[in-house]
Amino acid sequence: MAPPTLNKDELKNLSFILNKPHDVTFAERPKPSIEDPHDVLVAVNYTGICGSDVHYWTHGAIGHFVVREPMVLGHESAGTVVETGAAVTHLRAGDRVAIEPGYGCRRCGACRAGKYNLCEAMVFAATPPHDGTLTGVWRSPADFCYKLPEGVSLQEGALVEPLAVGVHIVKQAAVQPGQSVVVMGAGPVGLLCAAVARAYGASKVVSVDVVPSKLDFARGFAATHTYLSRRVPPEDNAAAIREHAGLPAGADVVIDASGAEPSIQTSLHAVRVGGTYVQGGMGKSDIDFPIMAMCLKEVTAKGSFRYGPGDYELAVELIASGKVDVKKLVSAVVPFEQAEDAFKRVKGGEVIKVLIAGPNEASSG
Amino acid sequence: MAPPTLNKDELKNLSFILNKPHDVTFAERPKPSIEDPHDVLVAVNYTGICGSDVHYWTHGAIGHFVVREPMVLGHESAGTVVETGAAVTHLRAGDRVAIEPGYGCRRCGACRAGKYNLCEAMVFAATPPHDGTLTGVWRSPADFCYKLPEGVSLQEGALVEPLAVGVHIVKQAAVQPGQSVVVMGAGPVGLLCAAVARAYGASKVVSVDVVPSKLDFARGFAATHTYLSRRVPPEDNAAAIREHAGLPAGADVVIDASGAEPSIQTSLHAVRVGGTYVQGGMGKSDIDFPIMAMCLKEVTAKGSFRYGPGDYELAVELIASGKVDVKKLVSAVVPFEQAEDAFKRVKGGEVIKVLIAGPNEASSG
Amino acid sequence: MAPPTLNKDELKNLSFILNKPHDVTFAERPKPSIEDPHDVLVAVNYTGICGSDVHYWTHGAIGHFVVREPMVLGHESAGTVVETGAAVTHLRAGDRVAIEPGYGCRRCGACRAGKYNLCEAMVFAATPPHDGTLTGVWRSPADFCYKLPEGVSLQEGALVEPLAVGVHIVKQAAVQPGQSVVVMGAGPVGLLCAAVARAYGASKVVSVDVVPSKLDFARGFAATHTYLSRRVPPEDNAAAIREHAGLPAGADVVIDASGAEPSIQTSLHAVRVGGTYVQGGMGKSDIDFPIMAMCLKEVTAKGSFRYGPGDYELAVELIASGKVDVKKLVSAVVPFEQAEDAFKRVKGGEVIKVLIAGPNEASSG
Amino acid sequence: MAPPTLNKDELKNLSFILNKPHDVTFAERPKPSIEDPHDVLVAVNYTGICGSDVHYWTHGAIGHFVVREPMVLGHESAGTVVETGAAVTHLRAGDRVAIEPGYGCRRCGACRAGKYNLCEAMVFAATPPHDGTLTGVWRSPADFCYKLPEGVSLQEGALVEPLAVGVHIVKQAAVQPGQSVVVMGAGPVGLLCAAVARAYGASKVVSVDVVPSKLDFARGFAATHTYLSRRVPPEDNAAAIREHAGLPAGADVVIDASGAEPSIQTSLHAVRVGGTYVQGGMGKSDIDFPIMAMCLKEVTAKGSFRYGPGDYELAVELIASGKVDVKKLVSAVVPFEQAEDAFKRVKGGEVIKVLIAGPNEASSG
Repeated sequence: MAPPTLNKDELKNLSFILNKPHDVTFAERPKPSIEDPHDVLVAVNYTGICGSDVHYWTHGAIGHFVVREPMVLGHESAGTVVETGAAVTHLRAGDRVAIEPGYGCRRCGACRAGKYNLCEAMVFAATPPHDGTLTGVWRSPADFCYKLPEGVSLQEGALVEPLAVGVHIVKQAAVQPGQSVVVMGAGPVGLLCAAVARAYGASKVVSVDVVPSKLDFARGFAATHTYLSRRVPPEDNAAAIREHAGLPAGADVVIDASGAEPSIQTSLHAVRVGGTYVQGGMGKSDIDFPIMAMCLKEVTAKGSFRYGPGDYELAVELIASGKVDVKKLVSAVVPFEQAEDAFKRVKGGEVIKVLIAGPNEASSG
Repeated sequence: MAPPTLNKDELKNLSFILNKPHDVTFAERPKPSIEDPHDVLVAVNYTGICGSDVHYWTHGAIGHFVVREPMVLGHESAGTVVETGAAVTHLRAGDRVAIEPGYGCRRCGACRAGKYNLCEAMVFAATPPHDGTLTGVWRSPADFCYKLPEGVSLQEGALVEPLAVGVHIVKQAAVQPGQSVVVMGAGPVGLLCAAVARAYGASKVVSVDVVPSKLDFARGFAATHTYLSRRVPPEDNAAAIREHAGLPAGADVVIDASGAEPSIQTSLHAVRVGGTYVQGGMGKSDIDFPIMAMCLKEVTAKGSFRYGPGDYELAVELIASGKVDVKKLVSAVVPFEQAEDAFKRVKGGEVIKVLIAGPNEASSG
Repeated sequence: MAPPTLNKDELKNLSFILNKPHDVTFAERPKPSIEDPHDVLVAVNYTGICGSDVHYWTHGAIGHFVVREPMVLGHESAGTVVETGAAVTHLRAGDRVAIEPGYGCRRCGACRAGKYNLCEAMVFAATPPHDGTLTGVWRSPADFCYKLPEGVSLQEGALVEPLAVGVHIVKQAAVQPGQSVVVMGAGPVGLLCAAVARAYGASKVVSVDVVPSKLDFARGFAATHTYLSRRVPPEDNAAAIREHAGLPAGADVVIDASGAEPSIQTSLHAVRVGGTYVQGGMGKSDIDFPIMAMCLKEVTAKGSFRYGPGDYELAVELIASGKVDVKKLVSAVVPFEQAEDAFKRVKGGEVIKVLIAGPNEASSG
Repeated sequence: MAPPTLNKDELKNLSFILNKPHDVTFAERPKPSIEDPHDVLVAVNYTGICGSDVHYWTHGAIGHFVVREPMVLGHESAGTVVETGAAVTHLRAGDRVAIEPGYGCRRCGACRAGKYNLCEAMVFAATPPHDGTLTGVWRSPADFCYKLPEGVSLQEGALVEPLAVGVHIVKQAAVQPGQSVVVMGAGPVGLLCAAVARAYGASKVVSVDVVPSKLDFARGFAATHTYLSRRVPPEDNAAAIREHAGLPAGADVVIDASGAEPSIQTSLHAVRVGGTYVQGGMGKSDIDFPIMAMCLKEVTAKGSFRYGPGDYELAVELIASGKVDVKKLVSAVVPFEQAEDAFKRVKGGEVIKVLIAGPNEASSG
C-alpha cells in the first residue's frame, strides 16, 4: 500500500524570518520547486531550535557569517516528501524523512575525498545567505534526506540533526569499547555525545557541568558518572574528575561540548597520556590553552564541524534501535506561530530542546 | 674477521656532571657493568648538545624534572660496543652504534601497546634522577643500541637522536607524498623535520624563522621555501606564508618546532581546512591559542614527545641512504675537556650542533 | 581486609600430559617458583578446552609445531594468585585472575611495536615445547594476569581466553556501530565474535553454520539473524545470506570463524564492495580462493592470530559489564581427573565449552 | 598571455571502434557538446594502450563487462581543452590536461565517502557500454581533468593514468619510508608501482618477473633489486627472493602486479609477519591461495581497483617533480591511423607502452 501523499498545492509556505537581531517576522514565501532531477520537496513537520539559531536571532551573526538580508531560521528538521525529481529512486511522496540541512558542491577536493562538511561552497540552512527550514516546504537533494524507519516518529526525526552532531564528534574521538569518556557540558550536544559514546561501547561516561539539574538529567540519560564543575584551577578540576570517576591515569577521551574556556582547559588535564580530546562546542576564538599538556602527553586533539558521510544514517539507526532515546530531550512542542516564544525559552535555558511544528501541521496555523 | 675490540679495563669513565645551575665538574665515576643478560656496555665516542641539556645547565630543571643530586649530562650519543651480555645476539664488541638514551619498563600499558615513549617509568639519560651519556662507558639494553652501517660515521651516529626526534614528529604529522609542510622554527629540530618531511615525499617544505641566517641555512639543507616571520598578528603572518609559498588554501601540515607562542598561533592559521598541526617544540605551559580555528577547520592537532618504535631505525636509514645529510649540522667537534665551553657556545646560539668527543677519544684527554 | 591466601606448599601440581597422539597421563610435576621479580605463581582453578588442544591430542602437532616431548595441555585458564615476585605491585596473593597464556620477548620489533602476538620468540602454553595450564600451579609474568572484578567468577575467568580471541578478530575487522557483520561458523569462537560485534555496536549480526542446533544457540546468544549454509556454489550461498539478512549490497564485515574452504569462499562473495573480511578460524593451508572478488571489490582482508595489547582487558570488561554472557557457553564442569573424558566430549562435538577444574579444586582430587 | 585555443569546429572526431573481438574500424562520430555547466570538451592528443584495452580487443569482454554494441576503445589520454562549461573556473580553452577517464555518480554512499572508484554507477571510458578516448574530442566533467604543469608534456600526460593506477596500489599498501617492497611483475603497472614505492620512501624495492629483459629495464627504472622468478614451489621462490634481497624476515609490503597464480602465491610467502600484500593485477577469478599464511602471519591483504581522490593529482606531481620518469616507458608513438597495429604490438609483448596520437595531431591523418 502506498503511503498517503500530500497535495503540494494546498501546502502553505509560511516562514519564520530573521530581519535583524531580535527582529523576526512570519511571511508566506514563494514555494520552492524541483530544480534538478535529483531534488525532492519536503513538507516540514517539526524543527528543533539550536544554539546557533538563537545566536543569529540575538546577534545577527556567527563569526564571519553575517545576516545581511532577511533569512529564514531553522535547520533541525524532519518532514514528509511531497514531490520527487525524475532521477530520484530511493524516496517517494509520503515518505517521512530526516533532513540533512547542508550539502557540498560534490566537486571540490574536500567533497571528493569524503569530507563534504569541509566544502567551502557548502549550502547550509539558516547560515547566511541561505534560508533555513522554519518554512512550509523545503527543497533538498534527495541524498540528503533519510527515510525514517517505522517506529521512529517525525518528532524524533527532528532530533536526528543534533544527534548527528554528536555522532560526528564521537567519530572524531574514535571512541572504542571499554574506553572512558569525559564529556564537558550537559546541554543537548553534550548529552547526545554521552549517549553516542555509550553506543560506541564506552564503559565510563562522565558528564561534567556547572548546573546541578543538568547533571541530574544526564544521569538518567546516558552518563555513568557526573561531576559538578567547580571554580578552581583547571588542573584541580581535572584531578577531582579523575578521582571521582576512578580514572587516576586520566580519561581515554575527553570531549568538550561546552565551548567554555575553563572546560577546555580542564579537558587537556583530564585526558590521559596518549589520549584524545575533541573540541565539539563553539565559543571564544582564542583562549588560554595548556599547550604543553597536549605536547608532552602526545594528546591527539581534533576539531569537529557539523557532520559528514554516514553520520545521519548512524543517527537514525541509533534512534531506531533504541540505543539513544532522543524523545527524552524534547521539553515542549509548540505550534509554528509560537516560534519566537520558543526561541525565548531556549535562550532562557530552562528547556533542553523545543520543537516547532511546521506551518502545515494540525497543531499549527 | 672480527672487528677490533676495546679493552674495557683501560677505558676511562670521566664524566661531565651538573651539580647545580651553572655549576659543572668533571669526575671519574665508577664504570658500569652488565646487569642483565640483555645489556651491553658502550664506550661513548661522540655526544651532541641539545637545548634540554642547556636548559638543565642554566635552570637545573625542566618542568617537574628537578636536578636534586649531581647528574651526568648528555643524551645524544654514539659509541662502540665493548661488552655484551649473555643473551645479546645482534651486537658484538667493536660494533659502532647509535644509542637511544631512554627505555621503558616493557610491562605497562603504554609499553605493551607500542608507545614506550609514553611509559611513566621511563629511564632517560640526563633526565633526573638518571645520569646521562657525557661519560666514558654507558650501559644500555642491547635493543636500544642500533648498529651503524658502513659509511655512517660515529659523528653522524651522534646525530641520530635529534633526527629521531624529527622522524617522530613527521610520523605524528603523517606526512604523505605530494603534501605541503610548513615548519615553524629553523633550529636543529626544525631543520631535521624539514629534511624528514622531504624524505616522506612532501613537495613543498616551508621553513619559517625570525633569524635570516637560519633561513639561509635551511634553504641549503632541505627547505623548498623559506619565510622570515614578522612581528604582525598571527593571521597576517599566516596569510603571508600562504601567499609566499603558493598555498592559498593553507598547508596540509604545519609543524611547530619552536615552542614560541606567536609561532604556534601562526601554525593554526597557516594550516588548511582538514589539515594537521603537530607541536614538536617545547615552550610555555599555557599560551593564547586560536581554539576555534582548530575546531571549525577540523584540524588534527598532535603533540610529539621524544621517539618510539622504529624511529631510530628509520633515522639511521635516512642517513645511510643519503636522504638526510646530518653532517651539515655539525658546527664543531670539541674534546671532552671543553664540554662546558661547548655548552656556552650552544647557549650563545651561534652554532647549530656541537659534538663533544668522549673521554676515551684520541682528541680528548 | 586482605583476601584469603592459599598455602603454596599444600598445593598439588598434578598435570595432564600429552605423551603422543591419544596417549595422555596424569603426573605430579615439580612446582614452579618465582624466577623473575615480575613473576607471579597462580593456582589454576578452571581450564577450558580449545579446538587446538584437541588437535594436539589427536594429531600431536599443529602445522610445524610438533609435540616431541611429553607436554602439559591446556591454555584457557583462570586461577588464584599464591605468590608474587618482589617487583609486582598490582597483584597480591588471593587475587583471582584470568591468565593470558602467552607472552613475547619484549625486545623484538614486533613486541616493541605493540604486536607481541607476532613475536617469533613467543612462549605460549601448550604449544610445543612449552607446557600448558592443565596443572596445579602456573608461573606467569604478572602483567599477563588480569584481576577479575567482583561479580566475575573464576569459571567466567576461564572463558576470557576464547573471548579475547573474538575481541582480537573483531578489532582486526574494525567493526563500527551500525555496521552489518556476517560470522561464518557458530562454534565457540564464532559465537563470541558475534557477541563482541554486538558490543562494538553492529546493528546486524548474521551467524552462519551448517548445524541447525548451533544456529538455535546463536540466536539466543548474540545473532540478530542466522542462516543455515547449504551445499551450493559459494556465490549462491552468499546471495542467499545477503537476501535473508536484508543486505543486498553485501555485509560491511565478514568474519570466517570456521576455517572451512566453502565458508571462506562464501565470505568473499558476502562482503560488500569496500568491506572487510577477517580470517579468524584455522583450516587447510591452501584453498581455492576468489582472489578477483577481493581485488575488484577492494576488500580489506586480514588474518587474526591470538590476541594482543588490550584484548584481555576488554574481554574482562565485556564480561563484567554483562555485554557478553560467557556463562551460557559452559556445557559442563568436570573434575581434573576427568580431563581425558572432557577432551572426548569436545571432540565429539555435542558440547560448546567444557571446563576442567584444577587439581586443587574441591571438585577435583 | 593566453594559451592558443583550438577551433572546435575544425576538429575531427575520428574514432577507433571495436565492433567485436578482433574486428575494429575507424569512423567519424558525432562530436560531443557541453551538457552540464561543469563539463569541458578536450581534444585528445595522446592515448596509451592498456592491457584491458587489448583484452577487450581480443575477447570482447572482461568479466561481466561485455561489448554488445560497437565501442570506442582507449582510456589513457591527455588532451587540450577546447571548450568549458559556464560553471568551470579552474580550466580554460588551451589548457593541457590529463584526463581521468571515469567518474562516479557523486551521490551514492561510496562517492560521498570518498571512494568514487567503488561507485556502482561509474561511467568509465571504454568499459561497456561507455565509449573510450581513442577519438577526436572527449567530454568530461571539469574536475576529472588535471592541468599539466609547464615542463610536463602531453605524452607524459597520457601516462598519468597508469601512474595513477600505481599510486592507488601503493596507497592501498600504505608504504612508509624505510620499508621494503617486493613487486611481482615488471610490466607497466609493476614498473610504476616500483617507482611510486621509491617516491614513498621505500628503501628496498625488489622487482620480480619471469622475463630477464623486463628485469633489466626495471633495474634502470626504479628497482633496487631484481629477481628472476623460477618454476619452483612458491615457498621456495619466496625464500629465494628474501635471501636475494637481504630480507630474511620477509618484505614489509608485497604488491602483485601480475595477476598470475604463482606470483600471488609467492606474494603471501614473501611478505613478513604483520606485513601488507596488495593485489593490483587482474587474472583468474579463483586461484589456489595460501590462506593460512595470511591468517597466521596477520597479513593485511587488500585489493586495488583503478584510482580515487588525490591519485591523479599525485601522479601529475610525481612526474612534474621528476620523481617518476614516465617518458622511459614510451616505446613508440604512432599516428591515429596505426592504432590497430599498435594494439598488435602491445599484445605481442615486445613493447612497454605505445602511444597513439589523436586524430587531430599533426602526426596523424
